[in-house]
Amino acid sequence: MVVDKHIKFRRLIPIIWKRIALMTILSSIFVVPIVYFGLDQFTIGMTAPSILGTAISIFLGFRTNSAYERWFQARGYWGEIGAATRNLALLCGRSDQKYKNYKTNRLSKAAAPIMRRMAKRGVALMWVLSRELKDLPPLQDESVKDLLEPAELKQLESVHNASLKLLFNQNQDFRAAVDEGQFPDGEHFEFILIQRQLAALMTQCFSLKNTGFPTHYTYFTDLFVWLLVVLLSMSLPGQENLGYFAIPIAVLIGWIFSMIEGIGSYMDYPWANNRNVIPTDFLTRSHERDIRAFALGETELPPMLTEKDGALY
Amino acid sequence: MVVDKHIKFRRLIPIIWKRIALMTILSSIFVVPIVYFGLDQFTIGMTAPSILGTAISIFLGFRTNSAYERWFQARGYWGEIGAATRNLALLCGRSDQKYKNYKTNRLSKAAAPIMRRMAKRGVALMWVLSRELKDLPPLQDESVKDLLEPAELKQLESVHNASLKLLFNQNQDFRAAVDEGQFPDGEHFEFILIQRQLAALMTQCFSLKNTGFPTHYTYFTDLFVWLLVVLLSMSLPGQENLGYFAIPIAVLIGWIFSMIEGIGSYMDYPWANNRNVIPTDFLTRSHERDIRAFALGETELPPMLTEKDGALY
Amino acid sequence: MVVDKHIKFRRLIPIIWKRIALMTILSSIFVVPIVYFGLDQFTIGMTAPSILGTAISIFLGFRTNSAYERWFQARGYWGEIGAATRNLALLCGRSDQKYKNYKTNRLSKAAAPIMRRMAKRGVALMWVLSRELKDLPPLQDESVKDLLEPAELKQLESVHNASLKLLFNQNQDFRAAVDEGQFPDGEHFEFILIQRQLAALMTQCFSLKNTGFPTHYTYFTDLFVWLLVVLLSMSLPGQENLGYFAIPIAVLIGWIFSMIEGIGSYMDYPWANNRNVIPTDFLTRSHERDIRAFALGETELPPMLTEKDGALY
Amino acid sequence: MVVDKHIKFRRLIPIIWKRIALMTILSSIFVVPIVYFGLDQFTIGMTAPSILGTAISIFLGFRTNSAYERWFQARGYWGEIGAATRNLALLCGRSDQKYKNYKTNRLSKAAAPIMRRMAKRGVALMWVLSRELKDLPPLQDESVKDLLEPAELKQLESVHNASLKLLFNQNQDFRAAVDEGQFPDGEHFEFILIQRQLAALMTQCFSLKNTGFPTHYTYFTDLFVWLLVVLLSMSLPGQENLGYFAIPIAVLIGWIFSMIEGIGSYMDYPWANNRNVIPTDFLTRSHERDIRAFALGETELPPMLTEKDGALY
Amino acid sequence: MVVDKHIKFRRLIPIIWKRIALMTILSSIFVVPIVYFGLDQFTIGMTAPSILGTAISIFLGFRTNSAYERWFQARGYWGEIGAATRNLALLCGRSDQKYKNYKTNRLSKAAAPIMRRMAKRGVALMWVLSRELKDLPPLQDESVKDLLEPAELKQLESVHNASLKLLFNQNQDFRAAVDEGQFPDGEHFEFILIQRQLAALMTQCFSLKNTGFPTHYTYFTDLFVWLLVVLLSMSLPGQENLGYFAIPIAVLIGWIFSMIEGIGSYMDYPWANNRNVIPTDFLTRSHERDIRAFALGETELPPMLTEKDGALY
Repeated sequence: MVVDKHIKFRRLIPIIWKRIALMTILSSIFVVPIVYFGLDQFTIGMTAPSILGTAISIFLGFRTNSAYERWFQARGYWGEIGAATRNLALLCGRSDQKYKNYKTNRLSKAAAPIMRRMAKRGVALMWVLSRELKDLPPLQDESVKDLLEPAELKQLESVHNASLKLLFNQNQDFRAAVDEGQFPDGEHFEFILIQRQLAALMTQCFSLKNTGFPTHYTYFTDLFVWLLVVLLSMSLPGQENLGYFAIPIAVLIGWIFSMIEGIGSYMDYPWANNRNVIPTDFLTRSHERDIRAFALGETELPPMLTEKDGALY
Repeated sequence: MVVDKHIKFRRLIPIIWKRIALMTILSSIFVVPIVYFGLDQFTIGMTAPSILGTAISIFLGFRTNSAYERWFQARGYWGEIGAATRNLALLCGRSDQKYKNYKTNRLSKAAAPIMRRMAKRGVALMWVLSRELKDLPPLQDESVKDLLEPAELKQLESVHNASLKLLFNQNQDFRAAVDEGQFPDGEHFEFILIQRQLAALMTQCFSLKNTGFPTHYTYFTDLFVWLLVVLLSMSLPGQENLGYFAIPIAVLIGWIFSMIEGIGSYMDYPWANNRNVIPTDFLTRSHERDIRAFALGETELPPMLTEKDGALY
Repeated sequence: MVVDKHIKFRRLIPIIWKRIALMTILSSIFVVPIVYFGLDQFTIGMTAPSILGTAISIFLGFRTNSAYERWFQARGYWGEIGAATRNLALLCGRSDQKYKNYKTNRLSKAAAPIMRRMAKRGVALMWVLSRELKDLPPLQDESVKDLLEPAELKQLESVHNASLKLLFNQNQDFRAAVDEGQFPDGEHFEFILIQRQLAALMTQCFSLKNTGFPTHYTYFTDLFVWLLVVLLSMSLPGQENLGYFAIPIAVLIGWIFSMIEGIGSYMDYPWANNRNVIPTDFLTRSHERDIRAFALGETELPPMLTEKDGALY
Repeated sequence: MVVDKHIKFRRLIPIIWKRIALMTILSSIFVVPIVYFGLDQFTIGMTAPSILGTAISIFLGFRTNSAYERWFQARGYWGEIGAATRNLALLCGRSDQKYKNYKTNRLSKAAAPIMRRMAKRGVALMWVLSRELKDLPPLQDESVKDLLEPAELKQLESVHNASLKLLFNQNQDFRAAVDEGQFPDGEHFEFILIQRQLAALMTQCFSLKNTGFPTHYTYFTDLFVWLLVVLLSMSLPGQENLGYFAIPIAVLIGWIFSMIEGIGSYMDYPWANNRNVIPTDFLTRSHERDIRAFALGETELPPMLTEKDGALY
Repeated sequence: MVVDKHIKFRRLIPIIWKRIALMTILSSIFVVPIVYFGLDQFTIGMTAPSILGTAISIFLGFRTNSAYERWFQARGYWGEIGAATRNLALLCGRSDQKYKNYKTNRLSKAAAPIMRRMAKRGVALMWVLSRELKDLPPLQDESVKDLLEPAELKQLESVHNASLKLLFNQNQDFRAAVDEGQFPDGEHFEFILIQRQLAALMTQCFSLKNTGFPTHYTYFTDLFVWLLVVLLSMSLPGQENLGYFAIPIAVLIGWIFSMIEGIGSYMDYPWANNRNVIPTDFLTRSHERDIRAFALGETELPPMLTEKDGALY
């Protein structure tokens, strides 16, 4: 996520110079002959480009809005995953570190390691999922290794969907903890609800990842912008005494619409590991610190992650 | 779902050439006499086409937005169905393959086949529903035959709504499993909630299928685009010295609006078995693999489905 | 709900000819004197009608969107009512037709008729509600008479809100069924949840019925369209050599906006018993068939309802 | 809520004549000198007013949409409050008037008055809340006095938040009823859920009341409309031969935008006790009649409220 | 939150004069040479600025809508936090001040202080969270000190996330209260649900705080407004005889768009401690008074907070 308030043009130029050059050439193909040979019969007035301009504006407004909503939806999903993990820690943590068996009303020795493992696995799941969404190897991360037991880590290496396997492992520990009387009444239900939420949220995150904005919209929006440059190049020379000066104006309008479209294209992929990514690592670390401190009673917390070159990851 | 980033015009031309030809004829009917006989008194200035152009733009913006939302809503429903099925597998699966009767605290022999059958039936339901939504024969699929027992498969052949029958069958197995002490406390409630979710989601999927975008909107949007071509054909020849050149410009504008409308029309039917369909098969297989591996402990998984000619199904 | 893909103009003409005639007269009042007496000082350029045209377009876009959403919201409510009724049938139906008392673990003779009656009453409630929403006499329908016992039918005749009375009757049967041990654990809660859902959905359906789109918006949108016809009639004659030809152009624009507004007006009342109504009968019958077959084990099902003259009711 | 289909201009004129007069004066200040002295160098073409007109249209579209949504949200809240109260009546009512203690399985004498009092208090809460939202004295209403016991009514007079106090009183009666075995299992949970819903809905209603549409938007939208009148007054005289006739055209456009803005301003305050208010009294009475008839078994019902001068309150 | 109905320009001028001055200079750079040297070949007609004006309008419409929704979302979150806290008070309060152990059916001496402490801690959490969101030291407030016990206050001073620590402390007291038989059945579940809600809401509040509107949109919207001023400065002088008078018109349009953008920028940060902030203090105090009066039985309530200089905080 970009946190800088200023966009550096030096970052933009390598991305956009080609498009601007192509637009300039395209515009010249129409403007130069019209001006040079005075072919006024090929200038087309302002009706057609105005109508197309309005249509593209509305179309891009819709497209921008959708991209924006997709991005914030992704942000929201990660927030909900964090909240569910935090809620899990509320269930599994004991500030006073005593795990009583509610059925026998005595302390349970077996419960403490299970319950603490579950709280940690919750955080580990966030790290693994974060890496899967960003197309990074899911387990090659110090944070993951720190939070999981070696046996489980090894088991995960051989499965095709590590984050979901962790969810199933939670269920197994849950059954053991239930036997130790750790989930009375509402807590029992709440754990099951958390699993339901996580199962759904993980599906939703991957759904956003593998279902892009419809290709047709992206493709034709782009095509229509090029057509607008053409229409403008045929319209502007006929107005006033504009001459060759029509070229930069047509390209400017084309560039503006391209920029708007381009920003939308980037935001469409909220998990792509670039400067616009949802800062899943940053947020996961923040939850990790809270859970380590308040649910596990740790005092040496891993540091917050900070921005790199104006962006959080 | 189209996954290609480029649209092939050879695919488009058979769909659109007729419309372009008709627009050309329509436009010529107005432009040719005006230019040939110099009937300037029938040219209409730019006010009327501009206003109509703006109105159509906004109308198409709304229409596009709705089609897009319908499509993603369908995508979301399938995601939720997948999440519910995954959640069911969390309830029914035992990684260590032991099914304890929580009332007697002893292992239940009868439970294992019931519980595994339920997890499989959940996936089968997705396959059957996917085919019903796509108007394919619901049971003629290897995946379905693989997941259901022969007796149940035979029973389904004679019912009018196979996917719903599966939901009722789940309930019957559930009661048997409850007698075997398999659904303590929160699990009991969770199964009922999953049934509620599936009952609702199946209704919602068919609701999208049998309730199209209102006919009036589609019909009149299209009509207004044709009227715009007419108005443009009466307006453009009066501007500058445009002459017969007005015809391609009017057709171009008409084509652009038709394309936008056309994309919306396709997306309106997210279950229609064409290149724009929600990739229900692809997604179902993905869930099937997860559930077979993590809930049923299988190691030989059916392969992922792949795109055909740039589209997922 | 209109299912025809084509709109028949012979249906439209009786609705719109008056408006078109009035617009023609209104337009003539302005155009004829301007053209006949050459009153160029009363032509107003294109700025004013353009601005008003844009404003009306956006206003109608909003209005159309709201009408569309109201209509689909109504469709969604009926889907949810169907899903809740289906869920009720899942609770009350027994495929193997045995009703065990979970407290005594013995079969309950008394339960079967109660439970079947509840499932049927659920469907009856949909029929009654459908008729109430369409302003038809709620009980005069074969389907209702078929699903309710004569005593209950008689009781309903004397109450002011038959559908709600049915909901209260469900509660009474529920208490009897609970005494027969029919609603263990999660089923008990689920029935109460279904009652809550239905209580809310019935309120929401009537809320849509008795709370129309704000009168002010409808009224002024219409007024502004007439003003646009006036402004166009004062603007068009001044452009090019348009003359009396300005009248049909102004009326055409006015008609287009009126059509858009008109479609919205119809969709605003999703329960009004005309061709645009939510097909509540069609959908209820569909649920009735499912429930009769799968929850009650009936084999002779009432037939699906079909479209009449291109519309479902 | 206005239910008339026609707006009476005699109602509008006292509200708008001042604004129209001011706009006429403002417009004249610019038009008269330009026309009288022929100051063509101060006319500004149509670009600037067109752009401003488009901007205001879109801005007003957003503003109108928000106002409309706020109003329907308020309507929805009241619907939900009604549904929750109806659901409470389902819990507390007994059609056969017998209140069995589910723990002792015997009739409870103490329960009947408590349970009936709770159902009535639910309706009373709606009346009190309705009056609080409309800024009327909350308890001075026959309906309230009819539904509450004198002691409770007296107690309410001294508290700063009567509707919330009623919610706390419900809880106290609930605990008494629980002791009488009136809320088995799911009913126990359902009552708590209803309290949660009402606590939230009351907060949301007041939230709408005390959080208006942002002042900045309202203020600047209005300012921009005045600026548009100015720009139009400087633009129109330069077109064609419009002369002083530019004044009414500029004022007309200004009036149209003012009307749209004005309707939005009214709808922004859905609880303000004027003709646009959510008809909370009408709806509450409707629920009161249902609950008195079906949950309390009363036969003499208070009459429905009717519209006054074309509006429901 | 601004509650004044009028915006004071003296507040605006220090914010906007720089921008207006810069726009004037920018506009002059183009207008002066064109007018002074009569460089008509550099004027560009109205097509380009019209298209750009429409595009910016739609873009700003989207941007404004999003900012508005973010602000009201924040308002909604605070409302939900208030509702959850109110619901907690319903659980923990006893109007008659007696805390019965539902398991022993006897009064619990230990329960009263725990339960009252929990209700107070709920309100304290709101105060602490409010200050954290506004970037104020979370504990330096009389209200916080009044509501928490000194030991807990001291403990909070050393933690990195005071509001979340309070949530964990609630859980600890909850377990103690459960042992005293204070949370039978549905109340047990409700407390857990409240914790889940608060865990999620706190995450959502901080999510809004640390995830701004995408930088790219803000940056380029601003850039495009400047480009519009340039295009207008090149377009207006060519129309009519506008001359230097084009400068104020171009700046006026630029200022209008800047104002719209600027309001959006402010609303994007709903927790920033300025005049547009969500009035979290005001709302928290309101809940505090309700809870002190109705759940704790206090009679001396802290005063309502009032607006300062036309704004609530």
